[in-house]
Amino acid sequence: MERVELHIAAGGRQEVWRHRAEALDCEVNFAIYLPPQADTAPVPVIYFLSGLTCNEQNFITKAGAQAFAAQHGVAIVAPETSPRGDGVADDPAYDMGQGAGFYLNATEAPWAAHFQMYDYIRAELPALIEATFPVTDARSIMGHSMGGHGALVIGLRNPGRYKAISAFSPIVAPTQVPWGEKAFTGYLGADRSTWAAYDATALLAHAAERLPILIDQGSADNFLETQLKPEIFVAEAQRLGHPVELRMQQGYDHSYYFISSFIGDHIAHHAAALKGT
Amino acid sequence: MERVELHIAAGGRQEVWRHRAEALDCEVNFAIYLPPQADTAPVPVIYFLSGLTCNEQNFITKAGAQAFAAQHGVAIVAPETSPRGDGVADDPAYDMGQGAGFYLNATEAPWAAHFQMYDYIRAELPALIEATFPVTDARSIMGHSMGGHGALVIGLRNPGRYKAISAFSPIVAPTQVPWGEKAFTGYLGADRSTWAAYDATALLAHAAERLPILIDQGSADNFLETQLKPEIFVAEAQRLGHPVELRMQQGYDHSYYFISSFIGDHIAHHAAALKGT
Repeated sequence: MERVELHIAAGGRQEVWRHRAEALDCEVNFAIYLPPQADTAPVPVIYFLSGLTCNEQNFITKAGAQAFAAQHGVAIVAPETSPRGDGVADDPAYDMGQGAGFYLNATEAPWAAHFQMYDYIRAELPALIEATFPVTDARSIMGHSMGGHGALVIGLRNPGRYKAISAFSPIVAPTQVPWGEKAFTGYLGADRSTWAAYDATALLAHAAERLPILIDQGSADNFLETQLKPEIFVAEAQRLGHPVELRMQQGYDHSYYFISSFIGDHIAHHAAALKGT
Repeated sequence: MERVELHIAAGGRQEVWRHRAEALDCEVNFAIYLPPQADTAPVPVIYFLSGLTCNEQNFITKAGAQAFAAQHGVAIVAPETSPRGDGVADDPAYDMGQGAGFYLNATEAPWAAHFQMYDYIRAELPALIEATFPVTDARSIMGHSMGGHGALVIGLRNPGRYKAISAFSPIVAPTQVPWGEKAFTGYLGADRSTWAAYDATALLAHAAERLPILIDQGSADNFLETQLKPEIFVAEAQRLGHPVELRMQQGYDHSYYFISSFIGDHIAHHAAALKGT
């Protein structure tokens, strides 16, 4: 494992590391922000999952999260969005292959050999983080767009592993929208019976714990009506009595300008749960 | 003039426009952030000048300035760093030609035809901004690295036009460091007598007003000892009694992680001067 970047930011350390991921059978980068409080005692960790086309850089350069992480004394880990490299299958489309891992374990060729992002994010990466850095095992998870889907799915399927869940502009029902139908057909095959394990709306009925979920969604998001459809998730949550707060933010789009405008609220939401306050 | 981007950010509007700049004899982009307060009354304007290799995007995507601009009710304009395009002279080096305009009026071939950034930033762009957007004629200026040089030079040479000056990691004495010697030789010619008009340290003795200048400088900046040398500027300011506050920030580097960590302080410095508080 090799550190490839180190910058002081908001009094803490923004680092980027490169390591061989067993689950992905390739080398990938991840970013970790360690707040100043980590110099004296271990801190809890928020995992931020990015969206289509992103890598570990987008969140750390554009979200403005470091000042809030320093304020609350939490670390933030921003992983890759897929396996990467010459030996890894890819697709010319932006919404399939490298940069578009959808945080699932692929079962179909040619993807299954490397595209095991669910296992990587859920188990391998936290184990590495907790063995390497001054952090506790208190974890929470959030994400944007495809990464919002990842945060909801991984959070809902792993009771006890995360203290809080939130999302910006998430794909909440991938089995019902074009991005998800295309990706799941490619990664999981045409048999839709396997898809529900990666569909946040379908998972709600099986959630063994009911962590409150915060979702921010911009009203001017180009993908709102075709790909995101948060109302599907909210309706199912209401039917089940699962606590979900959907905030429609007037005029905001799908960009990091939206994320940076509300990241402080999300980090406060996570920090409160991580510290048990 | 054409708007090429519009994003809601921190309750205001992050816009990018493209226009034909007369001074530069080419088309360039500029970015403007309009805080929510601009919806009801004109607001003052901070000009942010970026560094080598940058365009109008770097500051608006990475500095996290919008939240502070919204808090203080100020607009921020982030222009290009040089003329651009196929018809514009260029150089393969990162520190000469397109992306490296040094905020001066070039006199030498092949640069003089388009590289008139001093006139563009000082006069043409503010006139356009003030005729087009809901802003007042209260202006201030700041920048980073080459843009810190630009902010100091333009601020010092134009008494009465700006209410405040600040800089991150500025080139303060371009006539004494390699970046400046190379650029000034190319743009202004080998006769060094013309260079002092664009050297902040040399200009201090001729400043007709003594606006307080705030400078932040990272102690781990790779360029500190060879290109930046803020102590040269501070010594001359002390000799003249010109108020300069240099804050050496321990461990910070030359990146936008540094800018984003202290941009709130700079915007507060400018807002206080712009509002006369």
